[in-house]
Formats: sequence, structure tokens, C-alpha cells
Amino acid sequence: MDSNLAGIKSFFEPRSITVVGVSTDQSKLSSIIYHNLLRNRKLGTLKASVYPLNPSHARVGELPCYPDFDSLPEAPELVVVAIPASFAAAAVKDSAKAGAKAAVLITGGFAEAGRKVPEQELLAEARRRGMRLLGPNTIGLLDTYSGVDTLFLRTTKKLSSGKEVVSVLRPLRGGVAVITQSGHLGEIVSEELRANRVGLRALVGTGNQLDVSTEDMISYFANDSRCDVIAVYLEGVKDGRRFIQVASAAVKRKPIIVFKMGKTRAGARAALTHTASIVGDYDVYRAAFRAAGVIEAESLQELLDYCLTFSMLKQRSGSRLLISTNAGGAGAVAADEAELDGLDVRPLRKATANLVRHCLAGVTSSSTLPLGNPMDLTATVGTESFVRATGVALAAPYYDMAVVLPTHQTPAVTPDIARLMGDCLLQSGKPASVCVMGKSELASMIQDEFLERGIPSFPTPERAVRSMAALSEYSILRRNPKPLPIRQFKVHSQPSSAIEGYMSWQATDALMDQYKIQRPKFVILTPDSDDAAAMHLKFPLACKLLSPGLAHKTDVGGVILNVANLDGLNSAVIKLKALASSLKIKFEGVLVQEMVSDGIELLLGATRDEVFGPTVTLGAGGKYAELIRRYAVAIAPLNVGQARQLSTMTMIGKQLGGFRGGPRKTYELARVVSRFSRILCENPQIGQIEINPLIVTARGFSAVDVRVTNETS
Amino acid sequence: MDSNLAGIKSFFEPRSITVVGVSTDQSKLSSIIYHNLLRNRKLGTLKASVYPLNPSHARVGELPCYPDFDSLPEAPELVVVAIPASFAAAAVKDSAKAGAKAAVLITGGFAEAGRKVPEQELLAEARRRGMRLLGPNTIGLLDTYSGVDTLFLRTTKKLSSGKEVVSVLRPLRGGVAVITQSGHLGEIVSEELRANRVGLRALVGTGNQLDVSTEDMISYFANDSRCDVIAVYLEGVKDGRRFIQVASAAVKRKPIIVFKMGKTRAGARAALTHTASIVGDYDVYRAAFRAAGVIEAESLQELLDYCLTFSMLKQRSGSRLLISTNAGGAGAVAADEAELDGLDVRPLRKATANLVRHCLAGVTSSSTLPLGNPMDLTATVGTESFVRATGVALAAPYYDMAVVLPTHQTPAVTPDIARLMGDCLLQSGKPASVCVMGKSELASMIQDEFLERGIPSFPTPERAVRSMAALSEYSILRRNPKPLPIRQFKVHSQPSSAIEGYMSWQATDALMDQYKIQRPKFVILTPDSDDAAAMHLKFPLACKLLSPGLAHKTDVGGVILNVANLDGLNSAVIKLKALASSLKIKFEGVLVQEMVSDGIELLLGATRDEVFGPTVTLGAGGKYAELIRRYAVAIAPLNVGQARQLSTMTMIGKQLGGFRGGPRKTYELARVVSRFSRILCENPQIGQIEINPLIVTARGFSAVDVRVTNETS
Repeated sequence: MDSNLAGIKSFFEPRSITVVGVSTDQSKLSSIIYHNLLRNRKLGTLKASVYPLNPSHARVGELPCYPDFDSLPEAPELVVVAIPASFAAAAVKDSAKAGAKAAVLITGGFAEAGRKVPEQELLAEARRRGMRLLGPNTIGLLDTYSGVDTLFLRTTKKLSSGKEVVSVLRPLRGGVAVITQSGHLGEIVSEELRANRVGLRALVGTGNQLDVSTEDMISYFANDSRCDVIAVYLEGVKDGRRFIQVASAAVKRKPIIVFKMGKTRAGARAALTHTASIVGDYDVYRAAFRAAGVIEAESLQELLDYCLTFSMLKQRSGSRLLISTNAGGAGAVAADEAELDGLDVRPLRKATANLVRHCLAGVTSSSTLPLGNPMDLTATVGTESFVRATGVALAAPYYDMAVVLPTHQTPAVTPDIARLMGDCLLQSGKPASVCVMGKSELASMIQDEFLERGIPSFPTPERAVRSMAALSEYSILRRNPKPLPIRQFKVHSQPSSAIEGYMSWQATDALMDQYKIQRPKFVILTPDSDDAAAMHLKFPLACKLLSPGLAHKTDVGGVILNVANLDGLNSAVIKLKALASSLKIKFEGVLVQEMVSDGIELLLGATRDEVFGPTVTLGAGGKYAELIRRYAVAIAPLNVGQARQLSTMTMIGKQLGGFRGGPRKTYELARVVSRFSRILCENPQIGQIEINPLIVTARGFSAVDVRVTNETS
Repeated sequence: MDSNLAGIKSFFEPRSITVVGVSTDQSKLSSIIYHNLLRNRKLGTLKASVYPLNPSHARVGELPCYPDFDSLPEAPELVVVAIPASFAAAAVKDSAKAGAKAAVLITGGFAEAGRKVPEQELLAEARRRGMRLLGPNTIGLLDTYSGVDTLFLRTTKKLSSGKEVVSVLRPLRGGVAVITQSGHLGEIVSEELRANRVGLRALVGTGNQLDVSTEDMISYFANDSRCDVIAVYLEGVKDGRRFIQVASAAVKRKPIIVFKMGKTRAGARAALTHTASIVGDYDVYRAAFRAAGVIEAESLQELLDYCLTFSMLKQRSGSRLLISTNAGGAGAVAADEAELDGLDVRPLRKATANLVRHCLAGVTSSSTLPLGNPMDLTATVGTESFVRATGVALAAPYYDMAVVLPTHQTPAVTPDIARLMGDCLLQSGKPASVCVMGKSELASMIQDEFLERGIPSFPTPERAVRSMAALSEYSILRRNPKPLPIRQFKVHSQPSSAIEGYMSWQATDALMDQYKIQRPKFVILTPDSDDAAAMHLKFPLACKLLSPGLAHKTDVGGVILNVANLDGLNSAVIKLKALASSLKIKFEGVLVQEMVSDGIELLLGATRDEVFGPTVTLGAGGKYAELIRRYAVAIAPLNVGQARQLSTMTMIGKQLGGFRGGPRKTYELARVVSRFSRILCENPQIGQIEINPLIVTARGFSAVDVRVTNETS
């Protein structure tokens, strides 16, 4: 069991719940929460005792109200605080002193409003007393099994006509755990699941994540046998490395779907004022999602669709998709989407097509129907033929799953299509989703009938197909668990040799040697040395001015390229000496390097992300670095396999293997990247490194320019 | 008036409609159509006479049935044919002979099933008699004003319990014209519009587009004053150039939204068997959409969302978006989407923020609320404060439009939020959409109340934001009508000088001269000429073997680069001569070119698309052509402004202007591309051209390698 999970159980299965600040004013949040809990006790779903706390009232309704924690009939276990910020901090501290094991701090106005000091005081007090804290600035939690429910929402509202209408759909019991930094969006997911007949395991709002984090909750639900799908709305994680660790462990047992907010600057600003989340670099988050094997939803709708799909379809599945339809247009849209999603839309084989034709009695020109994939049975197909043909095709061993698009609007299709097609799909044993379009009464009935049978039903072909693509993706993710990234880095003792933030060329050279990253052959010509020292180098040569702290050599004219012979070398050294004196900087000497030409130029970089730590970046280098601006990012360190994956994510790396006339260097590149990726993990004094260009030729890799920046902290 | 529109009016406003093959069997398509038309006559929406045709019946129901066209009480104007393919062709020919002005051929099984011959016979007969033909393989058309309705769908179906339920939602009258190659998807759009309280102008299924095409229909609705939005589901257009012409003319008056199917190979295969559409290259379609100024929907859902938005919001709008919400998470999702869509999410200015604060009486810590954009008023804001604050912020002159995300689930928001917020948004005079989430009864009521007020309402933040992005995009598109592409190309008389498909180097060189595209300085050394002829060229030089029909010189070793001096030149010529004799090909001579180094390498190509004709392609060249594989495509010819747009669509072109140390050549590149784009338009004997690399240096552009392929037809 994860040691970070101590006390978490008290949120979900407390013996008692104390609600602070309950009053007779029923519109106050505390009062709403209190009455929701009482309702759950009456319904029998909540076993825990519920106590209202308020020094100003002796009773609330017919039940006694308590002035303070000491007067409670038993020691508090879970405490709910939803009173204004100015009083809330004291209430949390008091509950910790009174021995509470867990507190939900619903109140906002802390770090997200710029006030970090009271938050840190609360955290210190909770830690000292061994109390866990959810929030602040959260909707709290709802557990459909234990009946704990701190959501401050009323389930009905009164219209101006006086009529009460349902304003919040209550969840069904089920397997989807929703972990969310937005209470509102969490509640919406819960309503959508209900509308699709999918049950909720629990809803947890982590808010500002002062103590309990998204990582904690993923770890908790990974070990919860009632939970079979974990859905996460994420603004920012607290501990990047731990996120990868707990998520990758959980993914082996159940799918994790993440919808990440704060992809853009505008979104990141919004996250900061919403839950005080530092969202960091979205590319790094995506790298972390890949490393952990979580499935990223690209929109809120996708998060909902994937919850529906994963909670209904438990089978593993390959990527070979059958599309069966009686409407050619919808089938074509599905085929487009499937191919864009990387699914395998292989055609029906002849033998299968013949079997299908046998099912098509009564279909216009069934004998000449061009049966492909999509298998378009046309608007003339009747219900029975449609169902039988779909069953026969899906039974073919070369299909792993199906998307069926039954158009109930055609005259030939009867309303029992959902029942008959649904049973057929269930009997096939293969996963399938359906797309039921339209807004009529019959459309709703058919949609609902599929859902009732446990078949995910979507209103557009694209959503039906993408959901199956996610299912197939998860089958791969759980089959190939990623190696865990190393959390503790061995630290080399390396003397800092920095001058004004940059590492000296000598130290840089030693570092490259240590990690076996080849550089072009070079010599250093100092003021005293003889030019003849460069004689064993092969022309043409590059000459670079060395001076303490001079980083941007090119910008000041400190680099002379294409030196063709000894005469040229002499005049280059003289020029660079003169440059140093005109710039009034110290002349340390000239770095003379063999030039590497006619290779592919890469950029290989490493930096420290504030959330996830060391990362590695690979992309096109040299002058194309700025032209192409497409990099692949991964969390460091990488083993050779992971480094190879990274390289196939870049256009330049993808082509390296089969590049016209170029070297077949994919594997060697992976080894270089893997060694390189360890540098930041093992050398805490280094802030970032950029090799640009790293030139690939038939002879190997050559790090022509390397710039190492010291860690500033 | 477009001459292609002769007779089209007879589809929409006929004096009489004859339905072929109506029988007493009410399940037959012809019978369903006939009875739908009778119903419309009873309802008073249809003024046209309706006649059933069938030699086997004297009466259908209580009304007389006619054996043939001659026996009709009046000459037929519109004829509907929905009988099996084997009889349908004869019926269409008969109706043309009888003087019908228009026929709808619903029956399928023609070109989409591989039978092109009967289609061509029908077309010839219709053309000879001056009759227009819609279809075959179509759902036909529905006009909400004239009551013409050939859809073969019953509006109710019987459950097994015997209960009748609505199976097809009838459209409202309104302004959205739906042109579709899929009858099913067209009908779905119609239902969705109805569910969102949006009216339909007409639904037209173009099917196989034998005669009447999508282009015809766009042109027709462009001039129809009842139509204010044109929505198109497209598999393939018939005449690419005419599509661009009619669409770009229409866009000045009303938005056109296109959802294109057949983006992938799987989708293209499906389109071929669905409506016999040759969908061609998707990149070229996108280029055509840009040229025409139509808005492309990326999914079926987007098509629906944009119809809703454009039919409700008629204002032009800039791109400065206010996001107002009482739920931080939803606001943050909206902000992310807005920035991804290129909208301007600028923050509230201080003065506006202060005005907003004045509206927030009762909101927790309203004085310290970090009011940004999204303007998150938090879950504590009440209805009135929320509405007033939104109105005040939207009144700021630096916002053009708004997306409002009201969470009705919070205790402080009352059910009248839709009425109050809706009125506030309407009064602002600025366009706005809302996102109402949730599945409760109250959620539905609020969603519907916004729609009733004419405010587009969406169930996710992303869809609400994207729709506003489309609105802003259309404001630009209709403000900047694109120059029309030239339809008739001036044809140069150029002697074909092809050898085995490729143009000779002499002709190629003349062609480049003619279009003022610079090549590196060169001389030709023939077996008789003196090497000294190359003396006026600057070393280093490139030597290329010339031999009739030798296209891939590099592959056979026929190119020697970096020749540094006269000695090198001599030995290169000897080598190439020897190569020719060892390859047993004729030695014509050696092309000796100055080498161009240290520039940016581009690829500039032109080819003929089978739907849209000449196109131009621009991207990275040289060895990076294969590495980067990102090209921008445009329909040729391009004026300088259009060529400039093309270049900014490529990464390499975008960077050309500000490339580090490189030339600022954007404008000059545009002039080269514009001249180049005319070549295929003016030289029908040329099939394609590729300049790779076209090298850009500080001195200008240099077409180093040019390959011209002859048109094969």
C-alpha cells in the first residue's frame, strides 16, 4: 500500500461526519450538505453518524446541534468545512486538534486568490496532527457506496411558477471514479454517466490539492475493487514523477482517462486563478501521459464518451474494425474517422461477402451489392437481414470489433432494431459501439435500448469510432506496461565549473566524454601554442574564439568556418585575437574543430520541467531547428527502447532509418539519446543542455556545438 | 442568372407533381412519397397538383390513378421515380418525352454499383428534351415553403406493442438550405435543426449528381432570398472550377459550411460505392475551400453546430472574445479552446473590472476576486449579479463577442438565468453563445429557453467557443472576397519537345526563361566544345550528364558536385562520358552549372488534379523535402497576394521573412510562385513540374533542378 494513502479511507468510509457551521438558514452551503447527508441516512445508503456544529444553535430542525468538537458524542472522523475563509482556517485547525482523521475544506479564497500563507499554516497543522485534508476550494466528494456526499448542490429547484424541477441528476452506483479539479465539471460527468445508464464509483474534487492530490486519488482507486475506470479532469499535478509512477501501476488494472486543461497560455492563466495550479508545459504533460500509459481525452466530450465505452466494454481488442450500416453517408464518415484514428478498416473477404449475401433476401440488387468495409447494406435492407448480415461479418476472424450505424428512419427498419442488433452484438463476444442519429421519440428509445443492453451508443459516427479506437489503444497500453521511470537519481560529484551561468568548454568536453557522446576532433590553440598543433586535424576546420563567459560566439563574429589550409588557420587565429581585444574580453585561445559536412543535423536538448523534472527534447537541428520547430519531448531518463520511440515521434527521426542516401542510424541514435538523457538526472548542478547541431553522417554522430547551463537555484 | 440553373425552379415550385409507380401497397417508396405529398396538400403547404401513375391501378385510395403520362389532366412538370432500377430508366425517358421539366430519380443501383451506361443514356435523353434530373441514388428534395417533399420516410412507426411513435421529426420553415450527397445525413441535419428550433429552407439530395450537381444547388440557393445559410455534405464535386466560382460568389451574401467526406483512402473507397464520387485529393479540396471562402466543418457535429450558430447570429464579429462564467473549470476549458482556435482572449481592463465588482454585491470576497478572462465569478455569484456583471463586461469596446457558461447547479443561481442572461446578451447587440451543461430537467429547460431567444446553446464549452470562432472567421471571409480564379487559360503554342515523357533540358530552360524563373549560370559542354567555355562560371561547379530520356541522373551517378577547379572539371567530363558509354546511352554532353550554396532549399511543384485542374505545391526542398513532408497546396493560378498566403501556410515559407541570418524574401518568393503557377494553366501539353531545390539566398532565387513531365492524355 502506498504510504501516501494513510488516512484517505476516512474520507470514503468514516464512522462519523461533522459538518461545521450548519444553521437554520437552509440556503447556506453547510446546511445543504448537512441535509443531503441526513437524506442519505434516511435512504439507508449512509451508515455514518452525522453531527452539525454551531455554537449559535442548540438544535437544527429536530436534531441536536453541537457548540464545538469537544461536545460531540464521539471523536470526529471526517469533518466538512464550508464556511467563509476567515473562519474556515480556524475550524480546520480545531478539527485536527480534536483528533479528526480527515477534513474536506470546501471554502475557496486561498492560494487561487493569491493567499498562500494561511494554506501553508493549515497544511503544517494537519501534518502535525496526522489529519488528511481535501481542498481547499473543492466540491468535496461523493461516494455512491458509503453514502458520503459533501456536494453543496440541491437536487431540485423551484421555478417562478412554484413548480419544483430536478436540477441535479443523482448518480447510479457503479464503477467510474471521477477525480476532478473542477467540482462543476465533475458533477457534469456524473450527470452524463447517469443519463447514459453508467454508474459512478465516486466523485472527488481535489481543488487546490494542498494535501490530498490527484496522484493520491489515482493510487487509491487503483486499489479499489469497486472501481473499474478512472476519469481525471486535470489542471496540474503536484508531484510529476509520482503521477507517472502511480498511474502506470494503475493502468495495468484499469484504464485511466485524463482530460488536461491549461494547454494554452489563456488556459494556464485560468488554471492559476481557478485552483492555483502551475500547469507547466503541455508538451511535457503529454510526454508524462505517454510514459504512464494513460489515455488523453482531447475534449470534455471525449472524456464522457470514453467513460461510457470503458465502463460498458471490458474486452481487450485489436484494431481491425468492421463498419456495418444501412446508410452509406454515415458509413463513409465512420470510415474516414477510423482511418484517421489509425484503425484497420480492411475490406470484407470474398467468402464472408458471400455469406453476407445469403442473409440479404429482399434487398434490392443484393447479388451485385459492392460489399466492402463500410459494409453498406443500403436503405432497402430490413431489420432481420441487417442484423444477420452484421453477425455473419463480425464473426469473421479478421475483425476484432465493430461500429454499427443503424438508420431507423428507412421504411424497411423496424423499431425492434435495437433489441435484435443489440443481442446480436452481445452474442458476438466482440466489442461494438453503435451510432444512432436523430432527435425523434423513436431515436431516443433506440439509443436508450442499446445503452440498457450495455452497448455504447453515440449520436455521431465519429464519436462511435473514436471510442473504439480508445478501446483498442488501451488494449495495447495494458499489454505493454512501460518501464517505470527512475525516481532517485544517482548524483555524480562534479565540480561546478561555471562562469556566468555557462559551463566551461573544458568541463563540457569532459561531460561529453563521460557520456560517450562524440565531438568533432579538435585542438585548443592558446596564445603560447604553436599552430602546428592543429596539423593532425583534417581540413576544412572551424575556429571558435574562447573567452570566459562568451556564450554566443557566432553573434559577435567569434566563429570562422571553412578554414581550408594552414594559411587560413593562421589568419583566423589573428582575426579572433584582434576580435577579443576589440571586444575588450580576455583571449583564452582558439578552439579548432574539424568540420562535419553533408550530414543530417539534429537538435538534442535536456531541461528541467518544474513539475516533472528532467526532460529530453529531440528534433531537427542547425538552421532547420527554427524552420521546422517540431520537437518530441520525453521524461528523462530513457532506456534505449524509449529513446527509439522518441525518435520515431519526430519527422526527422522517423526518416532517419530510410533516408535517401543517408545513414541507417535509428538504433545508434537511440543509444546516444539514452546516454544523453541520464545527464540531467545524474548531475543536479546542470540546468539544461543543448546539442545543436548533432550531426549524423555515415560515420556516426558528432556533437558539433554543446551548450551547458548551470542550475540557477 | 447562372445558365446552368435553367429548369431548376421546377424542382422547387412545380405546378404539378407526378409520382411514378404508386400502388396500393403502402410500404412501397412511391406510395409513401405520394401519401406524404397528399398530406402536404391537405395541410395547405403544397399548392401543386399531385398525380399517381400506374397502369395496373385505376384508383389509389379514393383518387384516380393514371396509366401513363399522356392520360394526365395536364402536362407533367416534376416527376418522381422511385421504382426498381430495371424500370426506372424507362420511366425517366418517358417523362422527358412527355415534356416534364424536372425529374427526381430516387432509385439507386446505377454508377455507384458500377453501371455507368444506363446513366449516360438517361443524361443524353434528358439533355435532348431539356429536362433536369436530380439523382439517381438520392433521397430527393423537401421544400418547407412550397411543400414539395419526395422523401420516402414515414414520420411515425409502430412499436410491437402497437403504439405509434414519431420516427422522423418534421422540419420547421426557416433559412438553412441543406445540400447533401447522403440523404440520411441530410435528414439528420434537418432533425437536429428542428430540435434546436432552427428552421429549414430546403433539403436537397444530389446523390450521384448525374445532371444537377452540388455546384448548381449552391448557385440556386445563393440567389434564393429565403435562404440565409447553406450547409453542404460533400463526397465529391463534379466541376471543381465551377464549385469555386459559384461558392465564392455566394459567400459574399451568406455563409457556406461544408463537411467533406472521403479524406482518407477508406473514406474515398466508401464514397465511390456510395455515390460514385471520385473524391480526389483532400488537400486540393481544402485548397479549393480556402479559395472559395467556404467554412469547413471538421465533423458532422461541427456542421450542425455551425448551422445553429449562423442561423441565429447574423452580426459580423471580430475575434475578441469575453468568456463569462460562474464555474472556473468550464471557463478554463473555454479559454484553452479559444486560444487554440485563434481567438483573442484578452483580459478585462482595470476600469471594466472595477465596474464589474460593483455588480457583485453578496459574492464571497468580491473585492479581491482576480477578474480575468475567463471572468470567473465563482460558484457564489447569484443570478442577478452574474447577468449584470456579464452585461457590463461585454459592453467594453474591446470585446466583439461572448461565450457565457452559466452553471445552474450552484445554489445561488435561479432557474430564470436563461431569461435574464438571454435578454442581457440580446440587448448587448454583440453575438454570443452559451454553454449549458447537465442532463437534468432544469438543464433541458434552460438550454431550450436560450434557443427560444435565438441564442445558440451548446452542451460543452469547446463547441460553444468553436462556433464563435467560425462566426468570426466568416466575418473575415465575406469582408475579403477572394479574386476569382481564371477559368479559361490562354494557351501558348509551344512545340512538344518531350522525350519519353520528360521535357528536354533545352525546352525546360526556355520555359524557365519565359516565366522569369532564374536558374544557376551554366554552359553545355558537347563532345566538340572546348572546356574553356566553362571558364566564365564561378567555381565550385556541378556537372550533370545529358542524355536523351535520362531523368534520374543522380541515381545512376550522372551528377558530380563540388568541382573545385579546371582539373576537376576535365576529369568530371571524362567520367561522365565513360558513364554514358558503360550505360550504353547516347552522350549528348555535360551540363555545367554554378553551385548555389548556403541557401534555404524549397520545393515548388505544379500538377493537375482530376477535379480541380492545375494546382501548385510549396514546401521544404532538397534532402529536407522528404524529411519534412509538409506542403501547402493551392489552386492555380495565384496572384501575388494568394501566393504570399500560400507561402505563409508552410513552415518554411513562414520563417523565410525572419529567418536568422537569412534573406527576407517573402514578397519575392510570392512573385516567383505567382509566375510559376501560370505555367500549367497556359501550357496544356505539360502534365507536371517540380523545381527541387529552388534555393533562396541573399542574392535571389535559383531553380537548381527542374523536371517537367508531359501531359499523358
